[in-house]
Amino acid sequence: MIPKSHPRYESLMTREKIIDGVKRGITSMQGLIAEGRGEAFDYLMGEKTTKTALEAEKVAASLLLLAGRPVISVNGNAAALVPDELIKLGEAVNAPLEVNLFHRTEGRVNMIIEHLRSRGARSIYTKSDAFIPGIEHERAKVDSDGIFNADVVLVPLEDGDRCKALADMGKRVIAIDLNPLSRTARTAHITVVDNVMRAVPNITGFALDMKLSEKEALQKTVREFDNSENLARSIDELTAHLRSIRK
Amino acid sequence: MIPKSHPRYESLMTREKIIDGVKRGITSMQGLIAEGRGEAFDYLMGEKTTKTALEAEKVAASLLLLAGRPVISVNGNAAALVPDELIKLGEAVNAPLEVNLFHRTEGRVNMIIEHLRSRGARSIYTKSDAFIPGIEHERAKVDSDGIFNADVVLVPLEDGDRCKALADMGKRVIAIDLNPLSRTARTAHITVVDNVMRAVPNITGFALDMKLSEKEALQKTVREFDNSENLARSIDELTAHLRSIRK
Repeated sequence: MIPKSHPRYESLMTREKIIDGVKRGITSMQGLIAEGRGEAFDYLMGEKTTKTALEAEKVAASLLLLAGRPVISVNGNAAALVPDELIKLGEAVNAPLEVNLFHRTEGRVNMIIEHLRSRGARSIYTKSDAFIPGIEHERAKVDSDGIFNADVVLVPLEDGDRCKALADMGKRVIAIDLNPLSRTARTAHITVVDNVMRAVPNITGFALDMKLSEKEALQKTVREFDNSENLARSIDELTAHLRSIRK
Repeated sequence: MIPKSHPRYESLMTREKIIDGVKRGITSMQGLIAEGRGEAFDYLMGEKTTKTALEAEKVAASLLLLAGRPVISVNGNAAALVPDELIKLGEAVNAPLEVNLFHRTEGRVNMIIEHLRSRGARSIYTKSDAFIPGIEHERAKVDSDGIFNADVVLVPLEDGDRCKALADMGKRVIAIDLNPLSRTARTAHITVVDNVMRAVPNITGFALDMKLSEKEALQKTVREFDNSENLARSIDELTAHLRSIRK
């Protein structure tokens, strides 16, 4: 047990949540390391949603609302940290979920599907009958009706190779990634540089707000967004925050 | 298995090493998250030993050579990543090792002691009959002849609270920590902002070079070192590297 007196109590508690995911067979050990990397970037950003991230979140919501066949990809970290939030987002934008693991085993896939169902998820793609071209066999498995067929995919915490492979298939990719310099961040069409625990509810909030907007207004929001410029601003915010805490 | 074609193959392999530590009962799952945080900072520093870090490593070697009762603290991550390197450093500066875990269980302590012995460590403090004042019971346990009695302690990857408690006992603390902003980094007397896999062999190299130096020369090296100034430079290097990869 972490003593409540510990100055980093909250951050340590988040860690317990993801460690619990590992113990339940949902999260991989590599996922724990990824969580640590995210923690470091979140810390360097000031552990808050920046204005830049909020803009990307609004555009992400617009693109999801415009999509014809949107899918929300769920990995082991997302399943441990934001299962309810992803289900709510899926309902808000009519996007089914699909479990998609970097360290894939069918056992873990099924465990996460069960976990999401027990939380109330009703729409989940569960087949693994298609392959994303250009990446190694096990990591390429997807549902032919789901990610394989999607026009827009939201990937929280995705590997760079797979993000690129999805983009190469012609899909529009929305990534949530706290590292604004990662290959995933640079490859996605919309990169939300924010903690997944803040990003997902924010995107849902925007989606609910804009649900009744004109299609043209949503298209304009997406069209006017420049991901490289947004990423460059995230990096500037990071360096500015670093300078401010240096003192 | 990670395919060799993956662009981050080496970094992924380091991860496998520490995951192996978890599987063998040496490293804690919290240690995996800590590894991820370190990875992020290492990445932001350019995954190399900076000039600033090299200076701190030289001073660390000098202080270890000057110490009357130096001890090298070994946690679960250090035991998985640099067991041989820590044994060599201990031999170079006549510093016994002591296993000191943040998430302490006697089982894990004993497993790491056995691991270090099987690697050739001959001098290890193994009692847990004394307590560092001011921190929670389990985390405070140390050997009365070892860390409790030491004048200089090297702590790779230490918790901020414990680092402060050791300094409050009047010990000189050398920390290896990739986050130049962490409480550990700010509390230690000498903070080496470098990857433990590069830092430990570097400190050993300096110690072997300076072993026959005059005591006065070593004292001068230590006296002239300003840790806050060294840390500030590390942060500057981090922001400079960030700016350079932003392009």
